[in-house]
Amino acid sequence: MTDTTQQFASDNYAGICPEAWAAMAEANQGHQRAYGEDSWTARAADEFRRLFETDCEVFFAFNGTAANSLALAALCQSYHSVICGDTAHVETDECGAPEFFSNGSKLLLARTEQGKLTPEAIREIALKRQDIHFPKPRVVSLTQATEVGTVYRPAELQAISQTCRELGLHLHMDGARFANACESLGCSPAELTWKAGVDVLCFGGTKNGMAVGEAILFFDRKLAEDFDYRCKQAGQLASKMRYLSAPWVGVLQNDAWLRHARNANQCARRLAELVADVPGIELMFPVEANGVFLQLSEQAAEALRARGWRFYTFIGAGGARFMCSWDTELERVEALARDIRDVMGA
Amino acid sequence: MTDTTQQFASDNYAGICPEAWAAMAEANQGHQRAYGEDSWTARAADEFRRLFETDCEVFFAFNGTAANSLALAALCQSYHSVICGDTAHVETDECGAPEFFSNGSKLLLARTEQGKLTPEAIREIALKRQDIHFPKPRVVSLTQATEVGTVYRPAELQAISQTCRELGLHLHMDGARFANACESLGCSPAELTWKAGVDVLCFGGTKNGMAVGEAILFFDRKLAEDFDYRCKQAGQLASKMRYLSAPWVGVLQNDAWLRHARNANQCARRLAELVADVPGIELMFPVEANGVFLQLSEQAAEALRARGWRFYTFIGAGGARFMCSWDTELERVEALARDIRDVMGA
Amino acid sequence: MTDTTQQFASDNYAGICPEAWAAMAEANQGHQRAYGEDSWTARAADEFRRLFETDCEVFFAFNGTAANSLALAALCQSYHSVICGDTAHVETDECGAPEFFSNGSKLLLARTEQGKLTPEAIREIALKRQDIHFPKPRVVSLTQATEVGTVYRPAELQAISQTCRELGLHLHMDGARFANACESLGCSPAELTWKAGVDVLCFGGTKNGMAVGEAILFFDRKLAEDFDYRCKQAGQLASKMRYLSAPWVGVLQNDAWLRHARNANQCARRLAELVADVPGIELMFPVEANGVFLQLSEQAAEALRARGWRFYTFIGAGGARFMCSWDTELERVEALARDIRDVMGA
Amino acid sequence: MTDTTQQFASDNYAGICPEAWAAMAEANQGHQRAYGEDSWTARAADEFRRLFETDCEVFFAFNGTAANSLALAALCQSYHSVICGDTAHVETDECGAPEFFSNGSKLLLARTEQGKLTPEAIREIALKRQDIHFPKPRVVSLTQATEVGTVYRPAELQAISQTCRELGLHLHMDGARFANACESLGCSPAELTWKAGVDVLCFGGTKNGMAVGEAILFFDRKLAEDFDYRCKQAGQLASKMRYLSAPWVGVLQNDAWLRHARNANQCARRLAELVADVPGIELMFPVEANGVFLQLSEQAAEALRARGWRFYTFIGAGGARFMCSWDTELERVEALARDIRDVMGA
Repeated sequence: MTDTTQQFASDNYAGICPEAWAAMAEANQGHQRAYGEDSWTARAADEFRRLFETDCEVFFAFNGTAANSLALAALCQSYHSVICGDTAHVETDECGAPEFFSNGSKLLLARTEQGKLTPEAIREIALKRQDIHFPKPRVVSLTQATEVGTVYRPAELQAISQTCRELGLHLHMDGARFANACESLGCSPAELTWKAGVDVLCFGGTKNGMAVGEAILFFDRKLAEDFDYRCKQAGQLASKMRYLSAPWVGVLQNDAWLRHARNANQCARRLAELVADVPGIELMFPVEANGVFLQLSEQAAEALRARGWRFYTFIGAGGARFMCSWDTELERVEALARDIRDVMGA
Repeated sequence: MTDTTQQFASDNYAGICPEAWAAMAEANQGHQRAYGEDSWTARAADEFRRLFETDCEVFFAFNGTAANSLALAALCQSYHSVICGDTAHVETDECGAPEFFSNGSKLLLARTEQGKLTPEAIREIALKRQDIHFPKPRVVSLTQATEVGTVYRPAELQAISQTCRELGLHLHMDGARFANACESLGCSPAELTWKAGVDVLCFGGTKNGMAVGEAILFFDRKLAEDFDYRCKQAGQLASKMRYLSAPWVGVLQNDAWLRHARNANQCARRLAELVADVPGIELMFPVEANGVFLQLSEQAAEALRARGWRFYTFIGAGGARFMCSWDTELERVEALARDIRDVMGA
Repeated sequence: MTDTTQQFASDNYAGICPEAWAAMAEANQGHQRAYGEDSWTARAADEFRRLFETDCEVFFAFNGTAANSLALAALCQSYHSVICGDTAHVETDECGAPEFFSNGSKLLLARTEQGKLTPEAIREIALKRQDIHFPKPRVVSLTQATEVGTVYRPAELQAISQTCRELGLHLHMDGARFANACESLGCSPAELTWKAGVDVLCFGGTKNGMAVGEAILFFDRKLAEDFDYRCKQAGQLASKMRYLSAPWVGVLQNDAWLRHARNANQCARRLAELVADVPGIELMFPVEANGVFLQLSEQAAEALRARGWRFYTFIGAGGARFMCSWDTELERVEALARDIRDVMGA
Repeated sequence: MTDTTQQFASDNYAGICPEAWAAMAEANQGHQRAYGEDSWTARAADEFRRLFETDCEVFFAFNGTAANSLALAALCQSYHSVICGDTAHVETDECGAPEFFSNGSKLLLARTEQGKLTPEAIREIALKRQDIHFPKPRVVSLTQATEVGTVYRPAELQAISQTCRELGLHLHMDGARFANACESLGCSPAELTWKAGVDVLCFGGTKNGMAVGEAILFFDRKLAEDFDYRCKQAGQLASKMRYLSAPWVGVLQNDAWLRHARNANQCARRLAELVADVPGIELMFPVEANGVFLQLSEQAAEALRARGWRFYTFIGAGGARFMCSWDTELERVEALARDIRDVMGA
């Protein structure tokens, strides 16, 4: 029932990585207390605290939509607003989940440069309206790595968090591909989060080799008050929590999370290199994580699809997205690059 | 890290059953499309349609709280109300999730007899207030098997659904332990649902050997309009859906679901038999599923706990709940029964 | 089009009192800034601060349902709960508005004595469940005067607020008939609110001679953060706010609010006195505000209705409620009392 | 306390018109049943049915924000979306109320031409995303007259409603200035609503001479199911409803609504005429209702303010809005026009 042609459509088409699987198998022994009171969940939380070098509060949710929405709802009230980029996943692909979980908080779209928010763009949106007839800005949400495969440097994050503090805004990081950003920048998780002023991180596991389960880390512990109730009420408390937390132990304890990100990132960089000199092909964004965005004629895209390749073309006119995952093989990347060169030559 | 002393506290302390695990392992091959467009999800839905002998709409949610709340929200608006039993899980153990998902629908508590709603109790609540100053009743929610281990017979369900039709109410079934009810009654899933007038069933997998993932079955397909959007917005659409659906294929295709329920039910019945003649012990409810509720002195409960047994005593003064699961062993049941006899004799 | 037979059904069947009307007429001169930035609204807020002898935050809402719900929503999150009496208006007559405005907060019903909560009843409910599977208690809401016409003494309020502080609960007062309570007890507004530990008061104007418009007073100003946004988003910010605020100036500046409450209270007390010795009539509750609750046979109620009297009989079997308002005339009370005596003698 | 300098800032700075006031005074006699069961409310609803020449369902809300939000919430679920213009009041000035009342429905902004939606713009937005990862379009909301003082012709409305039917969308009209549109076009209310395919109209009274109270008219009665409960739960059911409904009787029964709109429209047209030839002044939009939008240098705006004139300049760079109301006097318009000419000449 597998479908090996799908490799570049999405990093969540990949399966469960060996380390996560092994931890699940180990966890699947006998009985354990439910609702997160088991030993695996405690271990996973401790692994996060070790990795992030801080005593943060750790929670688990079933998927990224819920993790982001719960975190944002904890940071604002229904009459507040969230500033995010115009390509942010919370805006474009979560079907209004942030609005639903928060009971109405509005997302305010700021312009981005290469998929990234800037202090100026944030300031512009935050100061545009300051009357009670428009939702009051309360949070900035940024995505690391971004939806277009770029990453925020520590200095960029610091500048943004400085702006947030000046404007009275919390800072949330959607880290669906946080591992890819850490690997790409060679930065520690701490450097890219609390040391740079991030209040809350949603750390994605699914796109990096897990079945389900995103982690929500509150670096400002006061913001986590009663967050366990919030998760429970919103249908995000697993009874058999060990199956969400054990995989995290599996990928965190031996740095598998970083190795998997490295593979995905390397495949993406390799693809970009291999097609760099193909006439008619242009990189839309710098390749800094596991996605490659190519300007590609519709004709060329069709020809590639005819050869069995799968990828999305939703990014504007003539843009094609190729995502690499933890299990992408370099041979496949090279085969794809050859086919791109082929169809462009035709 | 396992904790074998926990066996009778909750049926969600148990792990993943072999059939679910094998299906997950098989599903964990290569890439698959995300968000339920994979082949496993289609197969699982078909298995449900085969098992229920009808062309129902099938959805998956991560846990029972979400499944129930999403289903109820689909059946009523915020100014409507849901009639349920005073011991219903949606009322007592979901932290206001039904109210949250529906944006305010009130739960109206009807009295129950042995944990079961009756047409009279429903009618009484439904007709008590019929003015716009009180939420308008719109749904009846019952639990099969009930929270106190009893089951509704087909005739009881039919009488209730007849009452619902007369009063303009939808009928929702919380089937967290639906498998146990089917096994106990020797009834087909169809007989206990749509043939008896149930509109929507939340079929629980977690308590019957799965890791996560409950199924929501709409027998009245009109009620399922845009329900996929509802799930997505509420953070209940898994990207790697195959890991929720494949286990269902595993337990449904070879009737593992029924065998597991049988084991749990048999263990419960055996426990009840073994302690039936112990002086000072009294059954609080007939044992019709996988739970045994014993009237037990606090002293006796303490003595049992001292011997390492785990169980809940939240059911009123002097009530102790012993839950059996798909992997409970008869030897453990017999050992427990002996200890109960012992401590009561002391 | 008037209907003079309705006098005792509800205190909101009465019209606008002269003082409120005169202020509206005076306010209806020329243009004024909208959305509460007018001079009348500032004056009304100042009148409240003067009357309550404290620098409280003052807001206006269109009706009591909204005022209560907005206040409660400001005091708790969706996964919190509100402890109130089983006869509380927020529970019985607001169609789930508190749940709607708060996006799901559950109301937990405590038993009452003569319509009043007690520290014991609050403590019992607050401590009953302390796990994340049930909404966490966060607010106590009491009604002054109560729905059955009784009033809380300052010492009773202090005992309750002391309990609230111990349990980490806010204290909200539904003051739909707050004026009647002040008058009845001869207490100052301050004594019955912040001096007794009340955090937020919803002061009702409608039942005391205004057309629309309830005031929400936050004595703990921190709790009022961004409350103006909350009102706006919930459709409770009047553009022509002066028509809500000017009537308050009218009734507050010359103590009309107290005189009107006095008339209503006196009429109620008079009615109670006049029927005290009628055989077969029994007072259900002490008459401490503007309502008289009589135990009355259904036959007697019918006979009274046949003579043109209007009143509600929703309070249990055989209970009849007679409400007096700011414009009730003693002659009508006496006529009613005579008819009660008559029909009981028959 | 009046402030006569404010005349052109907003049409809701004006007071209550004589006809509304007289009706309120007449209604303020004796007792009336509460919650809309009074005779005035029945009369007002009948007046609407007469005026609109159809048996529509009529409800009242306290203000336009609530009326629009309640109507939209009745037309869509939380995972649906509302297509509206980028200048729509529901988007720009209701503080997220539509999102709050609907529990998360997203507003999708379509480009407008002179403030008006077009079938093409609607179609573009409606068809842009058709997957469950984005809220499903369910309603089109347009404003008549628009926020920039233009009006939709019947043919334009018909083209839009035809598009809506093709796309499965409901059609909502925000009629905060509906009276101005009727007057401007010389069309009957029926021609501009149900005869043109509008499902629901929010008919604004506040901007046309009332204190509070907007009417919500459902031409498709099925869409109004349980809408009375919705209003009640959302804090929009007035207990003394007669004070909301009687003014409507006052302004509808003798066509005062149309006369007041005529005065406002005439003043706006007069202002536009008087400044048409002033060098440096440019009309930003055709003057079709009661607003005049002038391109004006910041310097000129300052000079006008220095002479005591009040108006808003929020419409882009250099745009100034002058609103006329039911009580605007032609002399003031002429004085303003003279001052504009003066400051531009300087």
